[in-house]
Amino acid sequence: MGAFSLSRRLAAEGLGSALLLAVVVGSGVMGERLAGGNAALALLANSLATGAALVVLIWVLGPISGAHFNPAVTLVAALRRDLPWRTALAYPIAQVVGAAAGVWAAHAMFGEPILQSSARLRDGEALVFSEVVATFGLLAVILGAGRLRPESVAPAVGLYIVAAYWFTASTSFANPAATIARSLSDTFAGIAPSSAPAFILAQLVGALLAAGVFGWLLKAEEGS
Amino acid sequence: MGAFSLSRRLAAEGLGSALLLAVVVGSGVMGERLAGGNAALALLANSLATGAALVVLIWVLGPISGAHFNPAVTLVAALRRDLPWRTALAYPIAQVVGAAAGVWAAHAMFGEPILQSSARLRDGEALVFSEVVATFGLLAVILGAGRLRPESVAPAVGLYIVAAYWFTASTSFANPAATIARSLSDTFAGIAPSSAPAFILAQLVGALLAAGVFGWLLKAEEGS
Amino acid sequence: MGAFSLSRRLAAEGLGSALLLAVVVGSGVMGERLAGGNAALALLANSLATGAALVVLIWVLGPISGAHFNPAVTLVAALRRDLPWRTALAYPIAQVVGAAAGVWAAHAMFGEPILQSSARLRDGEALVFSEVVATFGLLAVILGAGRLRPESVAPAVGLYIVAAYWFTASTSFANPAATIARSLSDTFAGIAPSSAPAFILAQLVGALLAAGVFGWLLKAEEGS
Amino acid sequence: MGAFSLSRRLAAEGLGSALLLAVVVGSGVMGERLAGGNAALALLANSLATGAALVVLIWVLGPISGAHFNPAVTLVAALRRDLPWRTALAYPIAQVVGAAAGVWAAHAMFGEPILQSSARLRDGEALVFSEVVATFGLLAVILGAGRLRPESVAPAVGLYIVAAYWFTASTSFANPAATIARSLSDTFAGIAPSSAPAFILAQLVGALLAAGVFGWLLKAEEGS
Repeated sequence: MGAFSLSRRLAAEGLGSALLLAVVVGSGVMGERLAGGNAALALLANSLATGAALVVLIWVLGPISGAHFNPAVTLVAALRRDLPWRTALAYPIAQVVGAAAGVWAAHAMFGEPILQSSARLRDGEALVFSEVVATFGLLAVILGAGRLRPESVAPAVGLYIVAAYWFTASTSFANPAATIARSLSDTFAGIAPSSAPAFILAQLVGALLAAGVFGWLLKAEEGS
Repeated sequence: MGAFSLSRRLAAEGLGSALLLAVVVGSGVMGERLAGGNAALALLANSLATGAALVVLIWVLGPISGAHFNPAVTLVAALRRDLPWRTALAYPIAQVVGAAAGVWAAHAMFGEPILQSSARLRDGEALVFSEVVATFGLLAVILGAGRLRPESVAPAVGLYIVAAYWFTASTSFANPAATIARSLSDTFAGIAPSSAPAFILAQLVGALLAAGVFGWLLKAEEGS
Repeated sequence: MGAFSLSRRLAAEGLGSALLLAVVVGSGVMGERLAGGNAALALLANSLATGAALVVLIWVLGPISGAHFNPAVTLVAALRRDLPWRTALAYPIAQVVGAAAGVWAAHAMFGEPILQSSARLRDGEALVFSEVVATFGLLAVILGAGRLRPESVAPAVGLYIVAAYWFTASTSFANPAATIARSLSDTFAGIAPSSAPAFILAQLVGALLAAGVFGWLLKAEEGS
Repeated sequence: MGAFSLSRRLAAEGLGSALLLAVVVGSGVMGERLAGGNAALALLANSLATGAALVVLIWVLGPISGAHFNPAVTLVAALRRDLPWRTALAYPIAQVVGAAAGVWAAHAMFGEPILQSSARLRDGEALVFSEVVATFGLLAVILGAGRLRPESVAPAVGLYIVAAYWFTASTSFANPAATIARSLSDTFAGIAPSSAPAFILAQLVGALLAAGVFGWLLKAEEGS
């Protein structure tokens, strides 16, 4: 199979980011509407739907664009020279535009006003540290599975996100494009615009930390 | 292995559609009966059971008939010339007859009157748009995974449906045969006959849209 | 790898049946104790634990004994001459003894009296028909996946059982050894001894029906 | 690929144990906070998150260190001479230090005091017997799948743990390092220090029992 053109790769990143965010926001709305006030049930629906969708999106679109859907993933790929910088600068634009379109599609599907701004504050050291851990873990999974068991990357990322919704206090955004897009939704999955910058900074820190640790950890001995 | 005869392929489509709808309707009844009024729990059971069953049915019957169980899938396969038109005209008959039989089997298993007609209205633009998105996504998964990772089609469809139950406001029927059959059940999974035509139209629109988008997206460069 | 001796194969059937029933009964007790009266939550735990355990047990013990754990499966294997009759007569003894031991182990783990007899009536045509459907489906999965995609048998059986807990009114016992063993437990997963014979008869009918249907369905054309 | 240096292997054991315990404790806290008093929902979140994380950690770190994260697993590996004793003595130190660090990271993510001591008594014969069964099962899975289907070890362990949370009365610690680390957390997943020694002893008994049983069971006939 030949390579895919840049326009197709950008379309894949945009479409995948849109579907991912439609799932995150849509399943959050559905979960909250049906759960009768039980937030654990809403988060269970939200986490299972997101993890399932991620596996599928990486299977379907991975062969075209690499299925990043996430500027932190693209940044690390560029630093590791897995992606030329020109492409690495275009990807995040497609990711953010796609993610926003996905949030709006979710609003349309649930009969909500299309344009919203989240009022849900997510502030404080504990949540910011959670995002460092969440994104460190996500990149650890992508780098480790990608090098040692490439065929397991898609299920590994999906399973990781299911776990990460629950073991981080922030429910693991772990994605600057998703963070920006979720600030456009005043629903279960939203984040107030004022809380977004600290989340994004923490995500980049976690991603770079993982790149450093796994850059060392994955070096096998040559002589043995 | 040789090919399977048309009668076996139609039997596989009919049997698979029957089991699929028995799961959709049966798990909906069981979920609602046990959930004590909590619709999120009922939908969780309904979505996990349906997704699990789909994976299994595609594994078991896919090698015989392709495991469409869905006229929208058959239509796109015919348009792409993956299936001769004569077969493509017979499949939906088997799918609708099988799906109806599956609904009736579910009623018999749960001691419900066999013949019913749903009173559950599912109307409005938001739901119709949801069905366009749901069926677009389903065909995107089938076309993308089918071309790039055929061995992942079965789990990809199952995981997609688990997510789609939650991220679309309509709980993602995404299947004209299922829509017709579910109009025959006045239970959790039912749809009023008057709501069915708009659902079916939306499903066909979503399927054709996916065929167009992925027809373009999946074309790799020849020269590179 | 050479074949395994008959004593090892019987030990594998006994151990697997014991662990399977320990999971069915143990997770039923745990689910009911924690669910605060919500039967959907108890059944969700029960079904996910059982499905997960089945996949694992088939992976681990399948290469040794075939991982039947179920006299209906052994009967069909013998009829299809996949298993010599002498072995096929010994397997069910190991399965029933193992299954009973597993129920007692679950009672011990949960501080329940070891010896019990279930008072939970499961009677009526709807439940008996459910067991026919449940066991038909189980054998369909084993025969179909076994012939067309052997590597998917383990996950297929596990996923099928998750769905079958929900789409059949009987929660899908589908196994005569499990039915006998579950009559020894007056807990969530129990069945009154008086209800067991009709269940077992229905299971054998469903299994033979699947053997007939799939015997025809799986015959590919020779000439094409 | 060459072998990995001992320092990398110890780092992998430490990092994996840290992430595993961060998931166990973190998802326990999140589940309990959101579940509104329903312990079944909290345990469902806890079990799914832990099982998902285990699959991922074994995929990512298994090729480096073997992904034990568990002194009972390391002990059996050393007895079977799969691991030199010098390495086998170093692994548990990395596992315990990593596990404790993971518990503290979970506390930091959820804004809890970092240093805690559990007050949750887990005493009595039933729980101790549960830990024997739980660890017997875990080692059975690792030894059986490891020898007969190595590529299924990661999902097998994850699925086993999901089941084991539910079918054992102790929720299946099955890991001395995890037991010590969980004594440092006065949250949903904690265990009082006074209850820990009996748990650890039971775990070692279960592990050695599995090593004996599967040492015999997995010997295929040579002549056939």
